[in-house]
Amino acid sequence: MEIKVLHQVMDWNEDVSEEVKETLASRRICMINVMGSPGAGKTSLITSLIDRLKEDFRIGVIEGDIAGQVDAEHIAGLGIPTVQLNTDGACHIEAMSIQHILPELPLDQLDVIFVENIGNLVCPAEFRIGESLRITILSIPEGDDKVEKYPLMFTDTDCLVLNKYDMMPYFDFDEKRVCANYETVNPGAPLFRVSSRTGGGLAELAEFISGNIRKAKA
Amino acid sequence: MEIKVLHQVMDWNEDVSEEVKETLASRRICMINVMGSPGAGKTSLITSLIDRLKEDFRIGVIEGDIAGQVDAEHIAGLGIPTVQLNTDGACHIEAMSIQHILPELPLDQLDVIFVENIGNLVCPAEFRIGESLRITILSIPEGDDKVEKYPLMFTDTDCLVLNKYDMMPYFDFDEKRVCANYETVNPGAPLFRVSSRTGGGLAELAEFISGNIRKAKA
Repeated sequence: MEIKVLHQVMDWNEDVSEEVKETLASRRICMINVMGSPGAGKTSLITSLIDRLKEDFRIGVIEGDIAGQVDAEHIAGLGIPTVQLNTDGACHIEAMSIQHILPELPLDQLDVIFVENIGNLVCPAEFRIGESLRITILSIPEGDDKVEKYPLMFTDTDCLVLNKYDMMPYFDFDEKRVCANYETVNPGAPLFRVSSRTGGGLAELAEFISGNIRKAKA
Repeated sequence: MEIKVLHQVMDWNEDVSEEVKETLASRRICMINVMGSPGAGKTSLITSLIDRLKEDFRIGVIEGDIAGQVDAEHIAGLGIPTVQLNTDGACHIEAMSIQHILPELPLDQLDVIFVENIGNLVCPAEFRIGESLRITILSIPEGDDKVEKYPLMFTDTDCLVLNKYDMMPYFDFDEKRVCANYETVNPGAPLFRVSSRTGGGLAELAEFISGNIRKAKA
């Protein structure tokens, strides 16, 4: 499957996020913004979710990277419509880029679009891209102090995924600390304990996402 | 020990980096810019290096964080002159901030200053802060594709530390891939395999850094 590559326009506009949101709402598409550090496991998680959701929903992917298209090739290889968005050095995706790239996807044939944002716990949180749902991933090896250090990423999200949860025995990770801080900055928001490798916790996360896709379709 | 807090001025200037460099050169101080993802182990590595270098050199620390001062408190607790630089949301440290904060350190009594940059594999690489030496940290759990995805961070550095190297048995990490890509973007640059937890590889890294401190003093 051919992968289209688009380069990011740097003029950012909060209004564009609203325009994208309206476009997607009129087509009843749920767009999911997946954010997290480099190496938190964004691509693996999206791949695992595709596997669980593809029977019920028609899925597309916008794969954000500073450079290259390794992940997009991987996902396109699964038979999923995929476009590559290269930011050419920028540390986050902007709404303008999403607006430009959306027509490259077969929107009439999609229920949900996963956007894999640039690996970064800071800037992506500041830029709305017209998404219906935000998922923040924190992997166990990154440590238990990240909510305190990068609060916006955990405040402005619809759920938190504790990823690589099977690695818990090997790291000194205080889960209570993370949960308490997350509850403070984002009261009542859901948290999922997941391992893409073992499949643990994926069913619950997939169910939560299915609910959101159905809400967008209703 | 009291920790001074300074807030980042956002007007960035490449010239300021040169000014900072001259200031430090005139005082024969080596400033080391430590960069890496959130959770790569920057603070632990600096702490371990302090332990190995403090007999031979007088050390100061500038602790960069978006918010908070957890790490600065930890390092100040070791009896090391420490200042906290809060960027208030910005994803990297700028030279202007270093220029403003330097007088808060006892420069007459220092041989080396470690600057812990914001956890981010993108933006810090684009902003020189007047440093003599750059260290990029990549931890094993982050995965072996980071040099391809975030090339500038590995191109514009004086050495690469593969950290949490003791975690190698638990992750599917292709070290040859990282080494080959690093050699491509940064030919001949040194690479260190380190575990702050076990102490493995720290002696070699400390020796490399000592050489650079001595060069700045010469």
